[in-house]
Amino acid sequence: MVDRFARRSSPDNFPDISEPTLGEYQERSIINFTHGYASPDHLPADALAAVSDEVFGEHSSRALQYGPAAGLDHLREPLVAYLEEHYEIDTTLDNLMITTGAKQGLDLVCKAMIEPGDRVALTSPTYGTGLRILRSHEVEFLDVPVDEDGMVVSELEAAFEELAAAGEDLPKFVYDVPEFHNPTGVTMSRERRERLVELAAEYDVVIVEDAPYRTLRFEGESVPPVKSFDDDDNVVFLGTYSKLICPGLRVGWLIADEGIVDRLLPLKPDGGTNPMSQAYISELHKNGYVEERAVDYAEVLGDQRDVMVEAIREHLPQVDIWNVPEGGYYIWLELPKHVDTELMYEIGKDIGVLFLPGNLFSPGETHRNFLRLAWAYEDPEQIVKGVKRLSDVIDAYEERTDSPSASD
Amino acid sequence: MVDRFARRSSPDNFPDISEPTLGEYQERSIINFTHGYASPDHLPADALAAVSDEVFGEHSSRALQYGPAAGLDHLREPLVAYLEEHYEIDTTLDNLMITTGAKQGLDLVCKAMIEPGDRVALTSPTYGTGLRILRSHEVEFLDVPVDEDGMVVSELEAAFEELAAAGEDLPKFVYDVPEFHNPTGVTMSRERRERLVELAAEYDVVIVEDAPYRTLRFEGESVPPVKSFDDDDNVVFLGTYSKLICPGLRVGWLIADEGIVDRLLPLKPDGGTNPMSQAYISELHKNGYVEERAVDYAEVLGDQRDVMVEAIREHLPQVDIWNVPEGGYYIWLELPKHVDTELMYEIGKDIGVLFLPGNLFSPGETHRNFLRLAWAYEDPEQIVKGVKRLSDVIDAYEERTDSPSASD
Repeated sequence: MVDRFARRSSPDNFPDISEPTLGEYQERSIINFTHGYASPDHLPADALAAVSDEVFGEHSSRALQYGPAAGLDHLREPLVAYLEEHYEIDTTLDNLMITTGAKQGLDLVCKAMIEPGDRVALTSPTYGTGLRILRSHEVEFLDVPVDEDGMVVSELEAAFEELAAAGEDLPKFVYDVPEFHNPTGVTMSRERRERLVELAAEYDVVIVEDAPYRTLRFEGESVPPVKSFDDDDNVVFLGTYSKLICPGLRVGWLIADEGIVDRLLPLKPDGGTNPMSQAYISELHKNGYVEERAVDYAEVLGDQRDVMVEAIREHLPQVDIWNVPEGGYYIWLELPKHVDTELMYEIGKDIGVLFLPGNLFSPGETHRNFLRLAWAYEDPEQIVKGVKRLSDVIDAYEERTDSPSASD
Repeated sequence: MVDRFARRSSPDNFPDISEPTLGEYQERSIINFTHGYASPDHLPADALAAVSDEVFGEHSSRALQYGPAAGLDHLREPLVAYLEEHYEIDTTLDNLMITTGAKQGLDLVCKAMIEPGDRVALTSPTYGTGLRILRSHEVEFLDVPVDEDGMVVSELEAAFEELAAAGEDLPKFVYDVPEFHNPTGVTMSRERRERLVELAAEYDVVIVEDAPYRTLRFEGESVPPVKSFDDDDNVVFLGTYSKLICPGLRVGWLIADEGIVDRLLPLKPDGGTNPMSQAYISELHKNGYVEERAVDYAEVLGDQRDVMVEAIREHLPQVDIWNVPEGGYYIWLELPKHVDTELMYEIGKDIGVLFLPGNLFSPGETHRNFLRLAWAYEDPEQIVKGVKRLSDVIDAYEERTDSPSASD
């Protein structure tokens, strides 16, 4: 029998962990540091409820109808102004499309650009769900290291030179999260950003800049987006309201050269990104809530980071904090070399604390002695309790695996 | 220079017409029979506003968070009950996934099943946006005729036999809109549905049944879905709330064998279909509005169809009504052989009435002397005015092209 399914849908493409059911979460009070979920205590329900009358009143003919693939002007117009003021990005309606989250933006770029076997350059480790999307398009990965200043652009350059010299195809694009990088939390330096856009122009390679956490900086100085240095229109910028407002609205955006946007729009046959959500957000722009939220929520996240970092330092002496991020949602922890965090995860389920193992973040499923914690979801009290449980998990792991350090 | 873009994104894959801008629509009071938009006078703004308190109150922790790829149980549970009562489909949570509209369902099935060059069988003409989605996956088309009883399944069978005899690959799936078929409006007979599932089992071919208009029947007797005859789990059923409630919520669903669902879920990395919309709809299920809406809206659509059919009979003597549909949104009109409705469309823009030309509905861009009108969007008064304008468009077309019938 011929296989019904396409190669790309092979389960091998989607390394995963088995998560507890909702029932188990509740029954056993599991503490969840896995995903970039919104903090339940700080969901903007009141702000949204307050504009419902407008959404279902004056905007209902737009909000409840199909929407254009590029998004509603009603949202794109305030967004263009917002991007200029808060992102240092000058753009126009022709370069801006609304997407169903930044993930859809990445998927569309792949649809438009990738043939199976094409290369994509990215840091290892990198955003896990991004890897899944890229794998579903059958890309080959060109791994680039990441240090405390972000992607090591000189290594990318060396790889480009080598490929060019060998007459091989360059990557179709470079994918990165330069701001509060996922999972390591580092921010790419200004110098590297400038060099990256120069390289893109020199080699005619597209850069996909994924910036979900921008404006969620709680300390340190902001670095302008890679896109802001991009005089040659090689950068595709992905943004989202998911981290800033809340994920449940499923609205993001993409900025690119018009020639790229024109290729993406026909590949987005989704009847338009949720027009009801777009109407809600356009009202939040109008009444100033988007700005207000960025300030307030960055403060919440900063407090939660502080609590987590302090708890790690107190309760997890075996663990190295890779970097203390100045914004965003995540911290990346290095454990002793012999530890396999994928096995550790199973013990975490028993003990009642969840994290994501490092292998989910790298193309070759390396980084097995790393793990990522998200401080965004749990409240400070739970964060402390969860880090303590993590200490128990490490102890239990060492005991069960009878590893060198346990028998020392 | 190597092409930045993948083959599938070639503009040749997306035949289109240039539509007036929103400004032009308003300025010139253009009458729009093009798309399956909701009737602006009958948008359920009040019903949605009435449940906003619940969405942003007791449901906010679900509604504003990321959602599971399969959808919220809160919506899937009432939907399973609704499908049993109103669709004659028995299904379970393991077979049901929420999608961002039926279009995403079709796109996911293609992602999971299609390698470039794989065949898909479908009627010619068929759903235009469906064709665009299929083309973006580089499918080859196997055209099957359609008559007043729907897809001519005996012709499909003959094609299968021929391919099998020649040792060629059968289609990966058969795509159809058996209920109020888009664009012809016909409904597939019960006998053909039964034969279709037999064929699928015999040849191990999947059927994708796209049923956006089910429950929007305003006369005649309902025929059970193809899925209801599917004892071998070969049918993937696509449904949506877009036509029934309104498109702006962007929520649909897909029912399939668990083995298929398991392949589709990892390919849907969208953070879950809009959880806020899912929360709204789950509340509409709870308070009985979904049932109520189906009855009320079918009546509205039935009235609009009556007005359109009567106006066509009165004002368009040159035109053959292919079929008077018993439900749904569309009517398919045949013009004299020499007419090219794609050219006619341009005249329609000048005169102020829009429709979709026939070539957008067939894989080979045939059916050039056909056009589709949607009666769902405009109110009865506008429908009459628009059909009269269409009569002027036909006259102007005959004059401008100096065609045989004009010079007769």
